[in-house]
Amino acid sequence: MSQKGKFVVIEGLEGAGKSSAIELVHSIIEQHTGQAPVCTREPGGTPLAEKMRDLVKIADESDPLCDEAECLLFYAARTQLIANVIKPTLAEGQWVLGDRHNLSSLAYQGGGRGLMPLVKAISDASLQGFKPDLTLYLDIEPSLGLQRASARGELDRIEQQHIAFFQRARATFLQYAAEDESIIVIDASQTMEKVHQDIRQKLTQQLVNE
Amino acid sequence: MSQKGKFVVIEGLEGAGKSSAIELVHSIIEQHTGQAPVCTREPGGTPLAEKMRDLVKIADESDPLCDEAECLLFYAARTQLIANVIKPTLAEGQWVLGDRHNLSSLAYQGGGRGLMPLVKAISDASLQGFKPDLTLYLDIEPSLGLQRASARGELDRIEQQHIAFFQRARATFLQYAAEDESIIVIDASQTMEKVHQDIRQKLTQQLVNE
Repeated sequence: MSQKGKFVVIEGLEGAGKSSAIELVHSIIEQHTGQAPVCTREPGGTPLAEKMRDLVKIADESDPLCDEAECLLFYAARTQLIANVIKPTLAEGQWVLGDRHNLSSLAYQGGGRGLMPLVKAISDASLQGFKPDLTLYLDIEPSLGLQRASARGELDRIEQQHIAFFQRARATFLQYAAEDESIIVIDASQTMEKVHQDIRQKLTQQLVNE
Repeated sequence: MSQKGKFVVIEGLEGAGKSSAIELVHSIIEQHTGQAPVCTREPGGTPLAEKMRDLVKIADESDPLCDEAECLLFYAARTQLIANVIKPTLAEGQWVLGDRHNLSSLAYQGGGRGLMPLVKAISDASLQGFKPDLTLYLDIEPSLGLQRASARGELDRIEQQHIAFFQRARATFLQYAAEDESIIVIDASQTMEKVHQDIRQKLTQQLVNE
């Protein structure tokens, strides 16, 4: 296959059902292209980017991660993943399936933490226009999503943030989706069966239209 | 002491004599203020920022640190140090003595690696105008500096870069010094005795003029 691969990303709040959506999209891409996509997660996805992910997850009360450093670490991990995994994979004609990408930074740090000017400036400067071919955003009410997520086990540092944080993040996800037709909104409050039916239908439609 | 402390930074290429200059400036500040300054080094200076420094120093051939990620890591460490050490220390009236700060990123990544638009964008967005009160830049010909540095032991990944990299970095240091009167150039090619005499004279002059 000499054609360039495509970069498909799954986004959504905690508890939106990203993990099972990723499994489904993985199988749809494999059926469509005849080859399994390379899966990435963010932050992380390369040995060094995973170490950066670890730093974001540390909760050190004597040296709390400041908002700016958190944002910069996410972009350090992202540029490393793009340079050493995503771009080389796409160039070889293989597809990439991403568990989160830039839209998460815009939603969580930009919208959630109110750092949009910082996030946008760093995003523009470091990514230089690189973006996914297609993003599936699993939309869910934060209270319902957190209820589902907490049933899984303990919440991490970011998940413990106040519900208003997630409401601002959701509003930002929806705002970007309204302005960018490469972002498809899936109603993730439905039953898993219906969510998967919607994903299959909308993704297949996109793949056929190309 | 209720007055705000001052932030003094020592900058210079490898082999310029930063370490002994820092010892000297430390003692001059202590004499002047009656209190030892808090010393920082960059990248690093907080537990988390030191972990970011470790990531910059890793040389992993299977996952080489890309230029963008290197730059973003430096600023993640810098914003963390500013938020949790430099600003709180200055606010308490104590002085801070920095082994490198933002000018190093502008010189090495901006000038040296040719990433100035990226570095400037990230610098402007993340530092929001924060800068040292005074910077002493120890100027030396890269070939002489590297000769001195290599006598100390093995060179690290950044030190191993081609000499042209250091020439571009030096040109950037000098360009910023020419445009910013808070940056004082010290001729570090002189004997250590003469270099220290110059530092003492110029620093004392600045302190007396305040």
